[in-house]
Amino acid sequence: MSKDGVQTQSELPVFGTGQHLLSVMQLDRDVLTRLFATAEALRPVGQGTQVCRILEGAVLGSLFFEPSTRTRLSFESAFHRLGGSVVSTTGFTFSSMAKGESIHDTARVVSGYSDALVVRHPDTGSVAQFADASVVPVINAGDGSGEHPSQSLLDLFTMRKELTARGKSIDGATIAVLGDLRYGRTVHSLLQVLGLYDKVSFRVFGPPALALPAEFFERVAASGNHIVECGSVAEAIAPADVIYCTRVQKERLSEEDEQAVHLEGDLINREILDRSGRPDAIIMHPLPRDSRHNSFDLSPDVDDFPGLAIFRQTDNGLLVRMAIFSHALGVADEVTKNLRPASWYRR
Amino acid sequence: MSKDGVQTQSELPVFGTGQHLLSVMQLDRDVLTRLFATAEALRPVGQGTQVCRILEGAVLGSLFFEPSTRTRLSFESAFHRLGGSVVSTTGFTFSSMAKGESIHDTARVVSGYSDALVVRHPDTGSVAQFADASVVPVINAGDGSGEHPSQSLLDLFTMRKELTARGKSIDGATIAVLGDLRYGRTVHSLLQVLGLYDKVSFRVFGPPALALPAEFFERVAASGNHIVECGSVAEAIAPADVIYCTRVQKERLSEEDEQAVHLEGDLINREILDRSGRPDAIIMHPLPRDSRHNSFDLSPDVDDFPGLAIFRQTDNGLLVRMAIFSHALGVADEVTKNLRPASWYRR
Amino acid sequence: MSKDGVQTQSELPVFGTGQHLLSVMQLDRDVLTRLFATAEALRPVGQGTQVCRILEGAVLGSLFFEPSTRTRLSFESAFHRLGGSVVSTTGFTFSSMAKGESIHDTARVVSGYSDALVVRHPDTGSVAQFADASVVPVINAGDGSGEHPSQSLLDLFTMRKELTARGKSIDGATIAVLGDLRYGRTVHSLLQVLGLYDKVSFRVFGPPALALPAEFFERVAASGNHIVECGSVAEAIAPADVIYCTRVQKERLSEEDEQAVHLEGDLINREILDRSGRPDAIIMHPLPRDSRHNSFDLSPDVDDFPGLAIFRQTDNGLLVRMAIFSHALGVADEVTKNLRPASWYRR
Repeated sequence: MSKDGVQTQSELPVFGTGQHLLSVMQLDRDVLTRLFATAEALRPVGQGTQVCRILEGAVLGSLFFEPSTRTRLSFESAFHRLGGSVVSTTGFTFSSMAKGESIHDTARVVSGYSDALVVRHPDTGSVAQFADASVVPVINAGDGSGEHPSQSLLDLFTMRKELTARGKSIDGATIAVLGDLRYGRTVHSLLQVLGLYDKVSFRVFGPPALALPAEFFERVAASGNHIVECGSVAEAIAPADVIYCTRVQKERLSEEDEQAVHLEGDLINREILDRSGRPDAIIMHPLPRDSRHNSFDLSPDVDDFPGLAIFRQTDNGLLVRMAIFSHALGVADEVTKNLRPASWYRR
Repeated sequence: MSKDGVQTQSELPVFGTGQHLLSVMQLDRDVLTRLFATAEALRPVGQGTQVCRILEGAVLGSLFFEPSTRTRLSFESAFHRLGGSVVSTTGFTFSSMAKGESIHDTARVVSGYSDALVVRHPDTGSVAQFADASVVPVINAGDGSGEHPSQSLLDLFTMRKELTARGKSIDGATIAVLGDLRYGRTVHSLLQVLGLYDKVSFRVFGPPALALPAEFFERVAASGNHIVECGSVAEAIAPADVIYCTRVQKERLSEEDEQAVHLEGDLINREILDRSGRPDAIIMHPLPRDSRHNSFDLSPDVDDFPGLAIFRQTDNGLLVRMAIFSHALGVADEVTKNLRPASWYRR
Repeated sequence: MSKDGVQTQSELPVFGTGQHLLSVMQLDRDVLTRLFATAEALRPVGQGTQVCRILEGAVLGSLFFEPSTRTRLSFESAFHRLGGSVVSTTGFTFSSMAKGESIHDTARVVSGYSDALVVRHPDTGSVAQFADASVVPVINAGDGSGEHPSQSLLDLFTMRKELTARGKSIDGATIAVLGDLRYGRTVHSLLQVLGLYDKVSFRVFGPPALALPAEFFERVAASGNHIVECGSVAEAIAPADVIYCTRVQKERLSEEDEQAVHLEGDLINREILDRSGRPDAIIMHPLPRDSRHNSFDLSPDVDDFPGLAIFRQTDNGLLVRMAIFSHALGVADEVTKNLRPASWYRR
């Protein structure tokens, strides 16, 4: 099966100029290559040492029907970094929706004020509904337990960058995936999108009540990659080039689950890492992590481990989101011609 | 009576450079002509195919003491589209107002951070109080059951544009006005401002408990236009060039009203329209409309009717608000000299 | 003791390029001179008659963990006035913090989206914690009962400007300080920072339950200045060049305090002022003031007193905050070369 054939599972067009970005199903290796090249070209802009004003005059509508401050700030900063302006709203509903306005009307109206929209919504599929009525490209910033494609892209971009720095590549990598494998949207999207790569070997571990649903084992196999369920963190991370941790989303657990899970101690800490992991392992996490004691998450005592890439991940998120806007609005090829040095001081 | 004499009913100056826009009473035919010419010149900017940076460096203070997301986004996008920046706040009160700060102090302080203010407030007359203390022009974005002049302007602009496209004009037009005629601020302002035009014939219909107050019949007559109360939607729309629908603002109804009104079915749907309306009728609505079943509003089954102008109305709202800012800040004559092609892709 | 030695009380570096501004302890006379010169150079930009785009391309993260609309708008407008963009959030917590995210992680992540941060937080010391993890300069916009250095700077800048206009200077001035001297953060910071000046004579008066804590008398004495507690407003203001009023922060009073204080009438009104004050007195107030009747604050009947500087203070706040950003980001020396006339009309 061709690795470029994955997107044909979707009825959505491949992502590019003038297109919505609703799902990782819209990505193929070629799109990834182009997005990541743009993201890398924009690194000095993300770091505030160069300025790019390619979208000067454009307006982004940033519509967060549920709060996600970090994601919102990252998208809005990305659009500003390209010279554009942002109109923004946050909170569960528009006042007009409380008055019986349909998603269609809201989307059509607000899209008329903008050149692109970023939408986050608590209900799976509602961002796609939004996109149907929009007159401008819509970027899905997360809809319930559904998709959050920019997160998958920044994960992939970081993985590729970190592996390359160690003389490796995603093709052929061993990736441990730890934590909440049942409800974790990020994990599901990541397994999906890594199906575009060859000879990836997954080693997954989560508490029994939060194990990976069977369908994902089948999907990984169908994509030609390899996946094994491990009995412990130690077993999962031992040969791993990348260790991808996730927080248990306690707010999504049923009462029954919560009793079954019995989360104690750390998911990963420095001791576990030093004892069982590779010294050159790359540690990733979609954040936020729960830094409280005994929170069953990535312990802050790992923060000086050289392979800890969690903040490089969020920094990369800004670059990837700039790249998404550049491609959706058809200016990606103009980016490098439109860089100039920043006027201000950066450490 | 001269059509230009209407504004003399008001103590407020005619709207123009350096002036607040608090009421439709500040408009005359000459001001309308100039505002609409600017709005039309800015159409490619509103559509994202051209860029205008005439207000680069200017700051708008956007103060919404009650939420109205759509209106706020439209004003803020309009200012951004002209190259300006926006500082924005939303919610019922400023924290400082809770500490006993007067509207005077709030207005004086915040106006010192801005070149123009847009203010929405739940209390009738409070935006005018705000304007008294402001050192910069204040645009009223709605105050309680009082004024919302930019809505009237976008209604008028759309009516004029749609009628012109059909070889007609507002002078001489027949306009059906349907829905909540008692509390609907939009309807009252529209009747007022259409008093600036000649030989307009109004046909109004609403549920008995929501009938148009007597004073408006008198005012229309005094302006030299014609108005008739109809017994049914069918009767109202039969000869109408324009059908202006409104939502019943259930949140403003008293309990008594609510029992009296008995709203059922659609206010207008495709069947009523095809049976009783003109095939070239223009359908308008200030939005939001209540798209739920049996909501006594404009049914979504009308959405493919060619004369449905409700989304052209909101698109026009952006243009009209750009025009308002251009005139209040004295840059309207510079607009056309400051257009350049947009760098990004638009469908 | 040298007036430049004050900052050595602090472990924080003197404020300048690339530095956080967390405390007035980071200021010395030399820094004040440079900040105030930049603020004055930017006055036409603050007044909207000139445009400065020196920070075009830069992004400010504006993070208000407790609401303070006026302060937020002032900082955000200041950054916009320098050509920069702003991403903004308000409210008690980030959603991610509710999920157990540490201040460290939040600060590190969000600083990666920005070139500078403005942070307000209800807990004393938490902005400094934020700064420790940030990769860009952090400006403290108030943390609990702790510091709010931009307020002290705008107070000082206004005092200097108003005194100079009357042929006086802060060195040698007599300053009455009235109101809540016990909890008033602004008063404490002002006494601290005025320790940088010579021969200042303070005359303080507050209700007994809200008297100035003993340590401040000692600190003023240690700085070489003079301070006396007065028995009445009249006694305090009689020889005062500057009358600095504050609101009693009723929301910070304990129940016991509230019973002890018995606040009645005005703190200052026109009658008290005309009877006991100097005709050329300068009246200041950090705002908001409580304008309600009998609120024990500065009465609005003083508003036409020529020395009333309370709104010049807030206007100056914009200039001072522009100056803070210019220095933190190392562009202060470029400001004057980057001014051009504004395109729009200002009264």
